[in-house]
Amino acid sequence: MSEKVVVIYSGGMDSFTLLNQVIADGYKVFPLTFNYGQKHVREIEAARSVCGTLGLPHKVVDVSAINQLMLSSSLISDSHIDVPEGHYAAENMKSTVVPNRNMILLSLAIGYAVDIGANKVFYGAHAGDHAIYPDCRPEFVKAMDAVSRIANYEPVSIETPYLNASKGEILRRGLAMNLNYANTWTCYNGRGKACGKCGACNERLEAFAENNAVDPLEYE
Amino acid sequence: MSEKVVVIYSGGMDSFTLLNQVIADGYKVFPLTFNYGQKHVREIEAARSVCGTLGLPHKVVDVSAINQLMLSSSLISDSHIDVPEGHYAAENMKSTVVPNRNMILLSLAIGYAVDIGANKVFYGAHAGDHAIYPDCRPEFVKAMDAVSRIANYEPVSIETPYLNASKGEILRRGLAMNLNYANTWTCYNGRGKACGKCGACNERLEAFAENNAVDPLEYE
Repeated sequence: MSEKVVVIYSGGMDSFTLLNQVIADGYKVFPLTFNYGQKHVREIEAARSVCGTLGLPHKVVDVSAINQLMLSSSLISDSHIDVPEGHYAAENMKSTVVPNRNMILLSLAIGYAVDIGANKVFYGAHAGDHAIYPDCRPEFVKAMDAVSRIANYEPVSIETPYLNASKGEILRRGLAMNLNYANTWTCYNGRGKACGKCGACNERLEAFAENNAVDPLEYE
Repeated sequence: MSEKVVVIYSGGMDSFTLLNQVIADGYKVFPLTFNYGQKHVREIEAARSVCGTLGLPHKVVDVSAINQLMLSSSLISDSHIDVPEGHYAAENMKSTVVPNRNMILLSLAIGYAVDIGANKVFYGAHAGDHAIYPDCRPEFVKAMDAVSRIANYEPVSIETPYLNASKGEILRRGLAMNLNYANTWTCYNGRGKACGKCGACNERLEAFAENNAVDPLEYE
């Protein structure tokens, strides 16, 4: 029987690539999606659809309670505030940070792993986020891995195969696997079509341009 | 102005002692209580009452979403399953463990600390739990402290002044401060009076006996 693993799968392009890579590597995959009341609920729909097609036991956990913690709140989970447009300048990205987000989500994923008897949690941290999010940096991942290995009766490791890859490199690997990126969602504005203007859309479009590929998603 | 700190405060006797100690040490205290759908909601009522009396900005966060993660679930958060009676034998205690509970709760507390601009999270891990809960051991606390210091723009430390103290020793310190333990709740059965029979009640009564003191709580 193949080894059970948890894959944190948002429905976006990086974790979609990761999900498919981990399946190709022969693991028995339990995808875990967090719904934290964010604007990109469209991502979750994409995740559900992909897991349905692949026949995977998809778990969606509502963690909107995180928002109760925040006094000064964050853009990404507050539907009354407009998402900043333009490139992901450091200032704009900072404003979309939920304090300690990745530690919170990884802790929940580790709990899920323990519960189902998995010893690995895969997540798609990548080089593009290092400079801006403290909780995407290699030092953070290493420290989370260390604590995760001793926090429960069974050790759980944090697996981040894209830690030193750019978004463009991740896409290159997915295109090499013939993945269909129409099954992913990236835009921070949850409208019918992707806006093509927010920081997330800009990064996505840049990754396709780097690969001389055309994004199959429809844009406004 | 005194330094802001978060104190994880369940309403039980250990964290009640900790709360009062940290106040006595001169910090500006932000008590944080987790409601994870557990049987000891009476503890939360005790916590609210104490914070009201002390005029502290009490935050109660509903984390019952944690239960969504669990397939095989745990006794403590399932009101349909009886709490085991008798002494806290290792087997009974294991059955009350929510996978990765302390990492999840600490991650949320760290997020709250970042949000309010605090650099310390106090929690009442103590020696009595080391042998049984992996996420109460000094190695775990040390590893959580390490990751917590680098996970956000501002470092947050995990402060556990009772890490090597027994429950009896913690109570001794509280009695020396003239704390009134009628303002705490411990029993896992959320009835009108404490049952005096569950593992939590047994531990509490032992701590009072060690101090030759009488527990002011009413028992069935």
